[in-house]
Amino acid sequence: MPSGPAPNAFYAQSGGVTAVINASALGVIETAAQYPDKIGRIYAGKNGILGALREELIDVALEAPNVISGLMTTPSGAFGSCRYKLKGINESRAEYERLIEVFKAHNIRYFFYNGGGDSADTCQKVSEIGRTMGFPLQAIHVPKTIDNDLPFTDNCPGFGSVAKYVALSTQEAAMDIASMCATSTKVFILEVMGRHAGWIAGAAGLAAQSCGDAPHIILFPEIAFDEARFLAKVKETVDNYGFCVIVASEGTQTADGQLLSGSTSRDAFGHVQLGGLAPKLADLIKQAHGYKYHWAVADYLQRAARHIASQTDLDQAFALGKAAVSLAVEGHNAIMPTIQRTSDEPYQWTIGTAPLDEVANQEKMMPKSFFSDDGFGITPEARRYFEPLIVGEAYPSYDKGLPVYVTLAKHLVDKKLPVDERW
Amino acid sequence: MPSGPAPNAFYAQSGGVTAVINASALGVIETAAQYPDKIGRIYAGKNGILGALREELIDVALEAPNVISGLMTTPSGAFGSCRYKLKGINESRAEYERLIEVFKAHNIRYFFYNGGGDSADTCQKVSEIGRTMGFPLQAIHVPKTIDNDLPFTDNCPGFGSVAKYVALSTQEAAMDIASMCATSTKVFILEVMGRHAGWIAGAAGLAAQSCGDAPHIILFPEIAFDEARFLAKVKETVDNYGFCVIVASEGTQTADGQLLSGSTSRDAFGHVQLGGLAPKLADLIKQAHGYKYHWAVADYLQRAARHIASQTDLDQAFALGKAAVSLAVEGHNAIMPTIQRTSDEPYQWTIGTAPLDEVANQEKMMPKSFFSDDGFGITPEARRYFEPLIVGEAYPSYDKGLPVYVTLAKHLVDKKLPVDERW
Repeated sequence: MPSGPAPNAFYAQSGGVTAVINASALGVIETAAQYPDKIGRIYAGKNGILGALREELIDVALEAPNVISGLMTTPSGAFGSCRYKLKGINESRAEYERLIEVFKAHNIRYFFYNGGGDSADTCQKVSEIGRTMGFPLQAIHVPKTIDNDLPFTDNCPGFGSVAKYVALSTQEAAMDIASMCATSTKVFILEVMGRHAGWIAGAAGLAAQSCGDAPHIILFPEIAFDEARFLAKVKETVDNYGFCVIVASEGTQTADGQLLSGSTSRDAFGHVQLGGLAPKLADLIKQAHGYKYHWAVADYLQRAARHIASQTDLDQAFALGKAAVSLAVEGHNAIMPTIQRTSDEPYQWTIGTAPLDEVANQEKMMPKSFFSDDGFGITPEARRYFEPLIVGEAYPSYDKGLPVYVTLAKHLVDKKLPVDERW
Repeated sequence: MPSGPAPNAFYAQSGGVTAVINASALGVIETAAQYPDKIGRIYAGKNGILGALREELIDVALEAPNVISGLMTTPSGAFGSCRYKLKGINESRAEYERLIEVFKAHNIRYFFYNGGGDSADTCQKVSEIGRTMGFPLQAIHVPKTIDNDLPFTDNCPGFGSVAKYVALSTQEAAMDIASMCATSTKVFILEVMGRHAGWIAGAAGLAAQSCGDAPHIILFPEIAFDEARFLAKVKETVDNYGFCVIVASEGTQTADGQLLSGSTSRDAFGHVQLGGLAPKLADLIKQAHGYKYHWAVADYLQRAARHIASQTDLDQAFALGKAAVSLAVEGHNAIMPTIQRTSDEPYQWTIGTAPLDEVANQEKMMPKSFFSDDGFGITPEARRYFEPLIVGEAYPSYDKGLPVYVTLAKHLVDKKLPVDERW
């Protein structure tokens, strides 16, 4: 470390946001404050890494203390996030160099990047390029993704809360249809997120506590969709239970890799069927069996649902932000803190670490042993995995019937570099 | 009242269920137990009025006490509901006569019917036909509808909880998009229920607490959809705020009465099956402006969301069940207890009554004074109306991360009549 004032830290949120990503931010902020001799100010990127490229740095110390503490109960990316992928160093060299230039100008020696697989890769490259350019940074990745697809960590912050939302929404909607099915809706379809991995849809399986309980059918991206088998299972379920609840991953696809949702089919009136897997499945079922259906698409509601966030998820999000700073002050670099499960029951976990060069750009799929034999459900092993992740209700406080969520003032640090029009 | 054992009561749930209809059932059950000399047993219709037609009567006294008390925190229709509309007395005379026959066989002299406008009409007719057939019944309607469209009552049980769900889902999803809009989604559309009246969509307006807050556009069935004005407002909003959040009633229609959602199937009441408006709007916006969009359709999730039920709504649902029994033991007939608001702030309400012959088959639309001048939002007057209805969080208890909801055993009373194959 150079002498003089302690170097500063940069924190940014990357990619799709979650109900608890701000808890990781708070973990970073509160922990950094415990090491004033090692970490000076925290500058957060306004809209993620773009904030660094544009030299739009939010001075976290200028936020009101109650707003900062409110990050614990506020969903979304409070500092702004972005979908902006830095490519390889040769392709995106100018961007990496710009980052280092900005970090140098603001004496930033710590890079905390809060995101999924793509941002783990960026984080790794920033560390590399810094070294190459003679401005070594400690780059720590803080894992976050509702997709739960990062390797080396037992689970990813953000996932537990989506899992809880999806499982209880399935449970509640299934009770609704069960009470109406004698004369009305027979089939209910809930479309959930998950392009490549079925973790979110799988968690809906927690709603089924006894044999015959909903969801009766889960569609996973990992299991090829077979229309005939699916329609037969729907009919069998309605025959047996009077109704059928289906939870479908948006990434459901056929054996040849065609997404079911990417449809160009037309309805009876020649209208192009508009996006959405759920209406498409509903239509298939209606054509085959004539059942009355309802469908829901949870979309952003599922990942923004801080009102019913999992306490386990929140605790882990905070702990990983904290751990990232601890790793930094211990001198680590190009590393990611992880969740290591040490026991299912009682559920116990500790913080581990993974080197970023092994984390980057890997997707962790649901293991084969999590899928039931017919591919439409989850196994008891999967249930043991999912269950602890949704435990605990981390309620926000309310005012006049609505959650009290904070908004940051986002005071920007004065620019030290000439404006760069490229970003 | 005849001498001998106290006459029995029939209770049934009708039409679309809600997060709090079972609280009304509990209000009926607990209050009836306080008048053992006036009300004998409570028989609940299995699947609503069909339970009476089929002589499938659930003996409520045989349920475990903790299951009965659990009705307070359980969404859906615990006894089963149905979409089965009795028509006029001349058209449906056989059905009305069958009802009276079943009630006679089981010494049922009280008829508590828990539903919306259609069931208020049925309730009124059952009272009439009973009198005509020399078997006078006291028919009391217990109001319930998420549509909030019953006349004479300030609001309807079930609505406050949907309103809360929709307002907070809008708030949460809007924060998500706000944090991503710099580089990603610019438009988010949430489709909500509401065929003819915009109460539910209107309640989403509560999410906007300051000027410029989401939702930026609300589409109501009462306001003719004008594509050009809508698209211009979307663009203006994205230009001003960087993103645009739209809440759309499923019943949104053009000036000539064409529903924007494009389905032609109809349910047993002849109502068009709706849904699919959100993707349609998204497509319009994409064609006109090219914005990246996301959309959600809440569907059953909104009316089943007991996990975030409004305490006000729950209190009122229970109070109306209670009041129904009080009215019955006081000798009233063909009547509905109502919510009378006596003060906005502090919010205060009492129970009133309305005669069923005036309630039946009227739909209460949102008053003109609730719509903002441009027709895309709500007024401060509307906010004063909606706000108290969503206050308070009536949380259920949880086990292993999921709400604890009860399921009834549904022991049926022995049949006393020959099987009638017509139902």
